[in-house]
Amino acid sequence: MVEMIDHIGIAVRSLEERIPFYRDVLGLGEPEIETVADQKVRTAVFFVGADTDRGGRLELLEATDPESPIAKYIEKNGEGIHHIALRTPDLEGAIAGVLDGELRMIDEKPRGGAGGAEIAFVHPKSTGGVLLEFCRR
Amino acid sequence: MVEMIDHIGIAVRSLEERIPFYRDVLGLGEPEIETVADQKVRTAVFFVGADTDRGGRLELLEATDPESPIAKYIEKNGEGIHHIALRTPDLEGAIAGVLDGELRMIDEKPRGGAGGAEIAFVHPKSTGGVLLEFCRR
Repeated sequence: MVEMIDHIGIAVRSLEERIPFYRDVLGLGEPEIETVADQKVRTAVFFVGADTDRGGRLELLEATDPESPIAKYIEKNGEGIHHIALRTPDLEGAIAGVLDGELRMIDEKPRGGAGGAEIAFVHPKSTGGVLLEFCRR
Repeated sequence: MVEMIDHIGIAVRSLEERIPFYRDVLGLGEPEIETVADQKVRTAVFFVGADTDRGGRLELLEATDPESPIAKYIEKNGEGIHHIALRTPDLEGAIAGVLDGELRMIDEKPRGGAGGAEIAFVHPKSTGGVLLEFCRR
């Protein structure tokens, strides 16, 4: 059902402050920058490995508004790993699997995410504190 | 330099309690269980995707001792995402890249990790709060 680790979302105070580590020290190259208005975030996406689709991605997340979920996360936890995303072609099936297990989804229907992906978050109460996203590309 | 997201380490209180979600709800199949004595952890490793080496892995981590880094992490933060690991064939080069940037490594030399991997952790002060591991298989 799930194919690969699609990306890891990392909450940062400032993209500009954190990009150099990933670009230069880790050698991941220039990220793709995008603003996701409905999530109130600006993202910098690094493709891991020379094969840009199979190595997974690191997604830095900067809040564009104090009410952004990322701003609230950093206020509570500081900067750090925010969520993990697993890629699946069967997003509806993955959601149904969680609900059938009497577990909770944040998103019971797919919605739009960064990079044109369709996404749905599982509720962290259902995963032991891990914010887990399903993602279809 | 880095090839792919090798794995995501997830701190849990009990492997037995958390394995069913990953095995049954996410459909990742049976994990490989291993005890890593020098880290005082027991791990359950799930391979993501049918191709067992290219989809990345989810590594549940349970402390085997109150002095384990995982026990201390959970005491402070609760269960959740503990670290991320990037796979590189040039582990020494990755370490040198961090040190050349006047950043800190926890491990300045490779050491043994779960599954026979060679690993080295970057200090989270150098990454904005992310516990990042380099990993060679």
